[in-house]
Amino acid sequence: MSMSLYLEDLQPGRRIGTGELTLDKQQMLTFAQAYDPQPFHLDEAAAARSVFGGLVASGFQTAALAWVLALRTGCFDESNLAGIGIDELRWKKPLVAGETVSCRLEVIEGRPSASKPDRGTVVIRYDLVNRAGELLLTMKLIHVVKRRQHA
Amino acid sequence: MSMSLYLEDLQPGRRIGTGELTLDKQQMLTFAQAYDPQPFHLDEAAAARSVFGGLVASGFQTAALAWVLALRTGCFDESNLAGIGIDELRWKKPLVAGETVSCRLEVIEGRPSASKPDRGTVVIRYDLVNRAGELLLTMKLIHVVKRRQHA
Repeated sequence: MSMSLYLEDLQPGRRIGTGELTLDKQQMLTFAQAYDPQPFHLDEAAAARSVFGGLVASGFQTAALAWVLALRTGCFDESNLAGIGIDELRWKKPLVAGETVSCRLEVIEGRPSASKPDRGTVVIRYDLVNRAGELLLTMKLIHVVKRRQHA
Repeated sequence: MSMSLYLEDLQPGRRIGTGELTLDKQQMLTFAQAYDPQPFHLDEAAAARSVFGGLVASGFQTAALAWVLALRTGCFDESNLAGIGIDELRWKKPLVAGETVSCRLEVIEGRPSASKPDRGTVVIRYDLVNRAGELLLTMKLIHVVKRRQHA
């Protein structure tokens, strides 16, 4: 049974919760070495002297984790065609190793494509939170999704 | 000699070019497996049937590559304190394995912090381009950077 949500299912106000994941220190360092090799993402001593006061995950990794949590729900398995962009991404609180996070999605708007009858565009807000309910990251992702009638 | 650019150096209109990098297929698949495991990022046959017509890099990886190219210039080595967010990120053209890209930065605006005299905020547009000059990704990153007089 597909859990996929199509344009018709993604009405403004619809909320979708995800499972949890825990970032371990090695995943954090591996990502930073490849994509964000700043001292406060790589080295404990440099991190202690930084504005963060300790090692934190790259913000690009934090954003990607919100997305992977959403994918794991299965809601985009058959329906997500492509991404158009991201608006209003804000890193509100850094993610530290060992922290467990989940993501809350809320559909902001959606509309059918003017030129392609099989698809449409949806804007979904992603809020990544820790178990204490603190907001770590928020962003609006603009997706191209299939319409159900054409699935 | 530090190549770092501080708030005073990052005046609106200032442009910074980066070197190049080439994403190989294994880096593309490794990233997608961890952070964007959609069929069109992982499987050649599924990718051929997708709107992309072939394997393409995760958009989250493409964004991170723009950032790592900027870091490699050294311009943020001593000056970048943190990231605040991303606005108006758009994936204009997918990145394919083996493609060589570089990034063009342009400072959009900057201002000293009202509360902390040692730092300020800058908005920088990042345009990731291939060797044909085609725009793959654009985004505005909001940084917190040090002021030179406090470096």
